[in-house]
Amino acid sequence: MSETELSPEDEAPESELDDDDRLKHEFVRSVLDAVELGDDEEARSKVEPLHPADIADLVELTPAELRPALAAAIADFIDGDVLSEMNDWVRDELIAALEPHQLADIAAELDTDDAVAIIEDLGEEEQRAVLRALDPDDRAAIEEALSYPEESAGRLMQRELIAVPEYWTVGDVIDYLRTQDDLTTDFWEIFVVDPAHHPVGTCHLSWILRTPRVVSISDVMKREQTLIPVDMDQEEVALRFQKYALISAAVIDASGRLVGMITVDDVVHIISEEAGEDALLLSGAGDGDINEPIRDSYKARVRWLVANLFTAMVASGIIAIFDTAIQQMVALAILMPIVASIGGNAGTQTMAIAVRALATNQLTQSNTMRTIRREVTVALLNGATIALLLGVGAALIFGNVALGVVIASAMVVNVFVAGLAGVLVPVGLERLKQDPAVASSVFVTMVTDSMGFFAFLGLAVASGLVG
Amino acid sequence: MSETELSPEDEAPESELDDDDRLKHEFVRSVLDAVELGDDEEARSKVEPLHPADIADLVELTPAELRPALAAAIADFIDGDVLSEMNDWVRDELIAALEPHQLADIAAELDTDDAVAIIEDLGEEEQRAVLRALDPDDRAAIEEALSYPEESAGRLMQRELIAVPEYWTVGDVIDYLRTQDDLTTDFWEIFVVDPAHHPVGTCHLSWILRTPRVVSISDVMKREQTLIPVDMDQEEVALRFQKYALISAAVIDASGRLVGMITVDDVVHIISEEAGEDALLLSGAGDGDINEPIRDSYKARVRWLVANLFTAMVASGIIAIFDTAIQQMVALAILMPIVASIGGNAGTQTMAIAVRALATNQLTQSNTMRTIRREVTVALLNGATIALLLGVGAALIFGNVALGVVIASAMVVNVFVAGLAGVLVPVGLERLKQDPAVASSVFVTMVTDSMGFFAFLGLAVASGLVG
Repeated sequence: MSETELSPEDEAPESELDDDDRLKHEFVRSVLDAVELGDDEEARSKVEPLHPADIADLVELTPAELRPALAAAIADFIDGDVLSEMNDWVRDELIAALEPHQLADIAAELDTDDAVAIIEDLGEEEQRAVLRALDPDDRAAIEEALSYPEESAGRLMQRELIAVPEYWTVGDVIDYLRTQDDLTTDFWEIFVVDPAHHPVGTCHLSWILRTPRVVSISDVMKREQTLIPVDMDQEEVALRFQKYALISAAVIDASGRLVGMITVDDVVHIISEEAGEDALLLSGAGDGDINEPIRDSYKARVRWLVANLFTAMVASGIIAIFDTAIQQMVALAILMPIVASIGGNAGTQTMAIAVRALATNQLTQSNTMRTIRREVTVALLNGATIALLLGVGAALIFGNVALGVVIASAMVVNVFVAGLAGVLVPVGLERLKQDPAVASSVFVTMVTDSMGFFAFLGLAVASGLVG
Repeated sequence: MSETELSPEDEAPESELDDDDRLKHEFVRSVLDAVELGDDEEARSKVEPLHPADIADLVELTPAELRPALAAAIADFIDGDVLSEMNDWVRDELIAALEPHQLADIAAELDTDDAVAIIEDLGEEEQRAVLRALDPDDRAAIEEALSYPEESAGRLMQRELIAVPEYWTVGDVIDYLRTQDDLTTDFWEIFVVDPAHHPVGTCHLSWILRTPRVVSISDVMKREQTLIPVDMDQEEVALRFQKYALISAAVIDASGRLVGMITVDDVVHIISEEAGEDALLLSGAGDGDINEPIRDSYKARVRWLVANLFTAMVASGIIAIFDTAIQQMVALAILMPIVASIGGNAGTQTMAIAVRALATNQLTQSNTMRTIRREVTVALLNGATIALLLGVGAALIFGNVALGVVIASAMVVNVFVAGLAGVLVPVGLERLKQDPAVASSVFVTMVTDSMGFFAFLGLAVASGLVG
């Protein structure tokens, strides 16, 4: 049986995949052992039955220093399908090791979108070498795709699509599809166009199959369709696919002519990446993953930590104002991180909700005020609960009721401010056309840290607890 | 022109959508004004041209207290398509306001998967009332779907699919599709089954359309196909769709018989939710969104803040050990939050990367050791950089070189520990079959806070900086 038939009861015990569709460690080990022993035949026989997505995973799971040997051993299995499934960093590294003519062979067999995905990351000189090695039609198509901005619909789309004139019948369409040999076989709808190649309607294949031959295609097609401008950002393309549950969509140029098609399988990766990206961006880890070169990870992350060093110094500056108070009552130094820390957590909660709501277009001008009121209400409830616990605890442990009252009050203030900042900062950044996921954390943390120390130490002095 | 034709240059100025496909505030306002004035006709005429996804958005953007009036005004536009696009919380609230027979009318017109999505959230009594109002076929299909675990493939699949015997020709299939009136029209592939209804192959519609009538379907179909067990968790279904770039897939029961079909449009929402969920879970905001009832948000978040209160108290306990040192040198109290805070940020960065890599099956047993080495290396580079800046800064500001050396050393230690904990905690939780996104933050923060204070204050004492 094939490895892609994955029903549990049929699964052979020797399957290379575990329950979560991940390559088993023993399997990866056995392939790499064969490669290290120079037994390419053995490695090839193990890899051959794998799905392209699993071959891509295998390369990713191989230590970087062994990848060239593995790639050499299984070179002819590493085709375009495998490369387009591969992690960007790993692919770039692998591609750098291939000759331009090998790359051209791979690119020629792919749809434009996959070929572009591979070629766009090359250096300029390599790009030219690969393009030269392609035949003129492929080269023209890929060069045009490369002329669109990165991460735009133009880069994502494939040129291979089926477009038919309005006056054809269902029978005409079927005959055309049966007789033309050089058409793509990967399509889920056909586009109906006018003589100027403007899309006038779309037709799911199931509608064609369920309709008698004599019916005109214009009676089967749906006129309303979601058109994607060729320069639209891929993130918006993904949101549009998601919102309207699209399987594929026509891409049009500035004059409204049909120039390509985007299918959902190209978009699914983007949906997942964009949605998962926010967790990384909020944490200040950039857009990296575990395959990113260490140098790039270092650069992305240290920038963030330096920014946090400055916000932490602002908070320290506030503590420094109260140094005599701390010297008088060291309990203040012991307790002050609690107020700052809980405030930071409360702010992060609200911020994560707000950033997600902005990213999914749930939070718009129409419900901003309502969302602020909502988050402030939750913050006050949370603040009151934690304040009660902490106030009573501090009063008991330090035998000082006034200290308990001060820390409880500071807690309510800080969690309230955290809730407010947690919505206002991302919403404000969005209004300023900044990505709220990238910068919100620094601001919110600065607010909650500083306010935590200021409210607690300030109230301690103002209330006459110390001073 | 229709509102779903969204090419930028064609977009009429009076379009209800902004550049990001969100309903414009003025449009929402104008509909709600009409509702509030009791002018249902006006409201209906504005809502009628909207796409179901936009009607769902409109209801979400309407303040909760106005939703019943809006729903009453546009009742007949709120069909199954609109409900299945709607935010869960908002839908539940709206459904609670509908009569069982209204719900049954809506459920009857939907594919099983969408009907189940609406019915599964009802209370038991309402569920029974709706089921009673359905006709027996629909009822049986929905009852069977409800018998599968929540969030499983069985809940997600639709029963409406096309299955044909192996011995048919392409012509037989087309004639069958043309003559049977009660078949679904939403399908992208047909399944070929043996007499016991086990799937033996799958056939994209494009392959059928490109093949002459006389060819046997078994010569067109692909035998390798990805089968989904009916009890598979929806998150795994989503990962499988993503990994193998599926448009639709057959669902089989425990005996391998074809029982349903899942299409990618049902999975796209899950991919996005699961990927976006991690940011929320890591922040301790639960699985909420801005539409979650305040009571639920409070419960989800306060639990987390209480947990953080305990970890913050552990950190405070460590500070308390060094109270005499702080009294001797208040600069320690001023600087100690910096060490804890930067450590926390570094830990969060690594943790976000590790959690994402686990969620996307990038991090497996095969590369765990390598990933740990990688993260520790990045942590040491980051720690050294920040330590240098902070050490020199502290030495200059406080005019105390020894203090600079102590805080720099503590910084390196804490960022190193943060990097280690940032990988080990999520990987450990995953090994223990816990969701790393849910619990990692608490542990990592506790480690970096406690270690930050301990390393800094401990080194200050051990080095003789304070006595």
